[in-house]
Amino acid sequence: MSDEALVIFTPSGKRGRVPRGTSVLAAARQLGVDLDSVCGGRGICSKCQVAPGSGAFPKHGVTVTEGALSPWNAVEARYDEIRGLAAGRRLGCQATIESDVVIDVPPESQVHKQVVRKAAAEREIAMDPATRLAYVEVAEPDMHSPTGDLQRLSEALEAQWGIAPVHAPLHILTRLQKELRVGNWAVTLALYQDSDRAHRIVDLWPGFRDAALYGLAIDLGSTTIAAHLTDLGTGAVIASAGVMNPQIRFGEDLMSRVSYAMMNPGGAAEMTQAVREAIDMLARDIAAEGGIGAEEIVEAVIVCNPVMHHILIGVDPVELGQAPFALATSDALTLEAAELGLGALNPGAQVYLLPCIAGHVGADAAAVALSEEPDRSEDLVLIVDVGTNAEILLGDRTRVLACSSPTGPAFEGAQISSGQRAAPGAVERVEIDPATKEPRFRVIGSDLWSDDPGFAAATAETGITGICGSGIIEAVAELRLAGLMDKGGLLGSAEATGSARMLPDGRTFAYLLHDGSAAGGPKITVTQGDIRAIQLAKSALYAGARLLMDEIGTDTVDRVVLAGAFGAHISPKHAMVLGMIPDAPLDKVTSAGNAAGTGARIALCNRAARARIEQTVRQITKVETAVEPRFQEHFVAANAIPHATAPFPRLNAAVTLPDVAFNAGAEGGGGRRRRRRA
Amino acid sequence: MSDEALVIFTPSGKRGRVPRGTSVLAAARQLGVDLDSVCGGRGICSKCQVAPGSGAFPKHGVTVTEGALSPWNAVEARYDEIRGLAAGRRLGCQATIESDVVIDVPPESQVHKQVVRKAAAEREIAMDPATRLAYVEVAEPDMHSPTGDLQRLSEALEAQWGIAPVHAPLHILTRLQKELRVGNWAVTLALYQDSDRAHRIVDLWPGFRDAALYGLAIDLGSTTIAAHLTDLGTGAVIASAGVMNPQIRFGEDLMSRVSYAMMNPGGAAEMTQAVREAIDMLARDIAAEGGIGAEEIVEAVIVCNPVMHHILIGVDPVELGQAPFALATSDALTLEAAELGLGALNPGAQVYLLPCIAGHVGADAAAVALSEEPDRSEDLVLIVDVGTNAEILLGDRTRVLACSSPTGPAFEGAQISSGQRAAPGAVERVEIDPATKEPRFRVIGSDLWSDDPGFAAATAETGITGICGSGIIEAVAELRLAGLMDKGGLLGSAEATGSARMLPDGRTFAYLLHDGSAAGGPKITVTQGDIRAIQLAKSALYAGARLLMDEIGTDTVDRVVLAGAFGAHISPKHAMVLGMIPDAPLDKVTSAGNAAGTGARIALCNRAARARIEQTVRQITKVETAVEPRFQEHFVAANAIPHATAPFPRLNAAVTLPDVAFNAGAEGGGGRRRRRRA
Repeated sequence: MSDEALVIFTPSGKRGRVPRGTSVLAAARQLGVDLDSVCGGRGICSKCQVAPGSGAFPKHGVTVTEGALSPWNAVEARYDEIRGLAAGRRLGCQATIESDVVIDVPPESQVHKQVVRKAAAEREIAMDPATRLAYVEVAEPDMHSPTGDLQRLSEALEAQWGIAPVHAPLHILTRLQKELRVGNWAVTLALYQDSDRAHRIVDLWPGFRDAALYGLAIDLGSTTIAAHLTDLGTGAVIASAGVMNPQIRFGEDLMSRVSYAMMNPGGAAEMTQAVREAIDMLARDIAAEGGIGAEEIVEAVIVCNPVMHHILIGVDPVELGQAPFALATSDALTLEAAELGLGALNPGAQVYLLPCIAGHVGADAAAVALSEEPDRSEDLVLIVDVGTNAEILLGDRTRVLACSSPTGPAFEGAQISSGQRAAPGAVERVEIDPATKEPRFRVIGSDLWSDDPGFAAATAETGITGICGSGIIEAVAELRLAGLMDKGGLLGSAEATGSARMLPDGRTFAYLLHDGSAAGGPKITVTQGDIRAIQLAKSALYAGARLLMDEIGTDTVDRVVLAGAFGAHISPKHAMVLGMIPDAPLDKVTSAGNAAGTGARIALCNRAARARIEQTVRQITKVETAVEPRFQEHFVAANAIPHATAPFPRLNAAVTLPDVAFNAGAEGGGGRRRRRRA
Repeated sequence: MSDEALVIFTPSGKRGRVPRGTSVLAAARQLGVDLDSVCGGRGICSKCQVAPGSGAFPKHGVTVTEGALSPWNAVEARYDEIRGLAAGRRLGCQATIESDVVIDVPPESQVHKQVVRKAAAEREIAMDPATRLAYVEVAEPDMHSPTGDLQRLSEALEAQWGIAPVHAPLHILTRLQKELRVGNWAVTLALYQDSDRAHRIVDLWPGFRDAALYGLAIDLGSTTIAAHLTDLGTGAVIASAGVMNPQIRFGEDLMSRVSYAMMNPGGAAEMTQAVREAIDMLARDIAAEGGIGAEEIVEAVIVCNPVMHHILIGVDPVELGQAPFALATSDALTLEAAELGLGALNPGAQVYLLPCIAGHVGADAAAVALSEEPDRSEDLVLIVDVGTNAEILLGDRTRVLACSSPTGPAFEGAQISSGQRAAPGAVERVEIDPATKEPRFRVIGSDLWSDDPGFAAATAETGITGICGSGIIEAVAELRLAGLMDKGGLLGSAEATGSARMLPDGRTFAYLLHDGSAAGGPKITVTQGDIRAIQLAKSALYAGARLLMDEIGTDTVDRVVLAGAFGAHISPKHAMVLGMIPDAPLDKVTSAGNAAGTGARIALCNRAARARIEQTVRQITKVETAVEPRFQEHFVAANAIPHATAPFPRLNAAVTLPDVAFNAGAEGGGGRRRRRRA
């Protein structure tokens, strides 16, 4: 038995071997993992709380056995007694590593807490919410006509609003008599109606109530959960907030989580509980941020991919991990918030989940379709929702196709040596001078470039901590444009000889983007491994789009919409240099921001939109990448990064591009012709 | 401060003052309360567990303060640690009485456990249950047409059974994929349909399942809860069982419980929890008795009075305690078993509650109407459901009226000096020889009369412990027929002089029915107070019936149906001697047994019957006794017991009676004429 143990930290993915007996906090520091501590390991501040995993982690090739961490010690017991330690949590400064272990650092234990860049896109939405207020005056009871209070309320609702029948769930029925009497036989009802169900009473207040109702539009991603608190009267977004999806500790990508469910009895239930708790806490937080009580949230709409969808509703996702990728249910769902364990919301709150398109194309893709309306497009539009999984839609008013492509988390900065998620201090923009091979860059939290005066001062607080998704894409593309990398993605080609930035890294090279070691910061490099990870991700994305183009019989598209939280920050030029997306005029490449979130907001604010998307998804042609041999062919073919020189103007200059851009993925640029398949 | 404290035991109602510091077990023994103990007060056997009350008990005129019992002691703590003591329970041998207290003896702590005499009446019911099985073969998933498993199941159900749409609740959805695959794409569904809702999946099993589904017909009375476990395929009653309603500890009659809810914050919720737990436990017990798993119970129908109804569903019954006696809801309800905390049942089980007729005339009266069908009667029928509250229906096919009358628990042996509920050892039948004034009687558990040879041996095991409801009615009637009591109900009239059975009892007399003291048993007497209690109860019953007769404009009825658990055991002759019911030919007085329970069984077995009773109750005219001045007049007028001699043959002889019986309540017999009211 080795006297060292393997430790893997999530969500960072950082791993290493440490002597048995090393404290989790010490191991985190040694491996550069962001784990907070204020008291310096004295078991007082509790900032270093971690959540050790258990069972098999096929993704990491590790099985965590019992006793991987030292037993709960006296300091933890005392802390728990006095201030309470949540179930499954350990104090990182007390628990020591005894055998191979996977340890999750929850967001609240990170110094560089995630800033989720999912702001609600400004958009006009016709308001027609499913939940609305109705004030009714109810006849008093009469001994000679002894109907119940509910029956008289129902009659009043029909007479005064034309609404019948109405369903009063038990939690409303138990309050009805008191509220009617307090309100002197008048009450204000919050009524919910969806496409195929009668009205139901969500909440009620005595007398007349002139206050807003609120809804949550939730984009439940594999990596992040974003929510927009919306005034159901005006459609105004009152507050937006995001958290990391706590399921990350069970696996970073979808298939890892499906594997986790398959290999660990109760694993699916564990993930269900984790995500429900996270959403519930997010609801509390966003309500606080919006200055309302969480119980004022009477409705929620959730969009997510099928695996997230099934885990959320408590269905084991195992069928989604193997052909034929059968969904438990594909139709839209309306559930009680309470059924989903969302106790923060109003006790009567209803939760609407958009329909799923297919086993790999979920309610998030449906939401993108609702937001971007490819089915109403005059020209052929390719919509790419870039996240841990990419949802791809291609079509126009005659036909829409959809698929999903497993890009993995590299585009989000994960599995990248200096990678981190988008947070202050992360490099998000990169340029490399083709002549000098010197870089300049920008970090999140400052508008200055690294060669601007005042940059050092502006970034003093955040530091320069790593490189995020958009940063690594630009860096890799710029390495190619600067001639530091060949078409196959190999660093250190002939042109690179002699650059002081090109450091030997084992048998390959790494490009030094920034050396912060003098100031106690990290060295930020782009390694050969990083480039390979990006190549794999971009090939998957391109192959998916290409597959849909084959299906429709075209080599080109008229326009490209980049959607997704991350899509909003991708530079279209660099995306095309890399070959992430197929040819299109650069001015026809637009960002839709978080289109899935926008779709969720539309569904939240407009009842008819729900009926519309339920109808639309039935007409979308689903293409399954996982079993399509041509996907593999496209994937292999898309590995190259062909552009040795850039015809593009420098970033931040006005962009004017020829109508036909490079075909970045396939060999040779394709013309703007559309052909029918043979 | 007195050195004695008042202790009141429920459900017996026995009360007395004991020195402070007396153990509950010792006090129970002193007052003749049935409290079990095997270990003799050593804190080992736990048989003497009691549930002390807290707060105000307006019915008993007592407020129980904190510290009424001694603090939890070491013996109880040790017992709890080792074997567990349910919340609110104390060991009667350990807890001592320190101030006035109300103490409930739960059924399991009684030696003479209640035998609830509510057997399922034999009755033909056309089977058309709301829950039934459907076997379906489902198309396998196909990547090219990626609908969800639920959607393909729905399509199969529509194609193979013509059933659409179907609702799958979340707990079904989470199991669907696995069961479909285990069953090789065939499943058997339990489907529930009620009058206005689509089908919903209650449960499912892989492949073909040829097993019975079971339902529970529950008669939730103020005093007892009876249930019949019914095969939903055949309608056969597999098992019947009953328990005491644990709400008795909050008040014996309905208004005491409403008062308890009004005076104690959280009191209504406490009663809700108590009754739900009792029903849940009853379900477990009856399933065990029937040799099935409780989860095989997929449906339940519950009938009860409005106060029980509201408390069961969690509605504070306060409005039912005051004019205009407004119900929260009068319509029938279909609820999830889980919503009612009935966790023993199948997780998908549905619970149907019959509609209420009015604030004082509940779903139990609706069930009686469903069973006895006064709305289909050619002649004028009076239906009296005798319990703690009497439900009274009068009518024929042209019109049906209903009211409720607060008879109190005297008819059930409560508030009677030697009274007890119907259980082995209770006197249930009485005759008094008019010449010798000597009684003979029968006790529950033996078919022999007390003067039969072998009676002593036959009753040796049960003892002769008290007198139950039917026994006290016969005893009082016989006292009158034997000339021991005058028309006003006064014992010790002229004829009684010199009888050794007539014992002085303060300023009045008591009739000694049985002296068991030589053998260590109790003396069983009928006191003046007992007679007054019966007079009050019978006057209330009679006045209610009279009020409906006034309303319909008649002095007589064509026939009388005695319903209710207790109604099944009332001797019609003695009931008429007492003046409980108005004139009718004695051969036209029949017992319907537990008609409410039968109505529940009908509703359980026949879906159309639910629609029918929902329609019928809307057409029933409700008469409110509580605010009707003539009710008081009738009540006062009905106090007398006019029959000095009996024209009736002895009991157990063939009964032949004149067509016109005595009008026992009003002064002078009325003719068999019906008149319209002026």
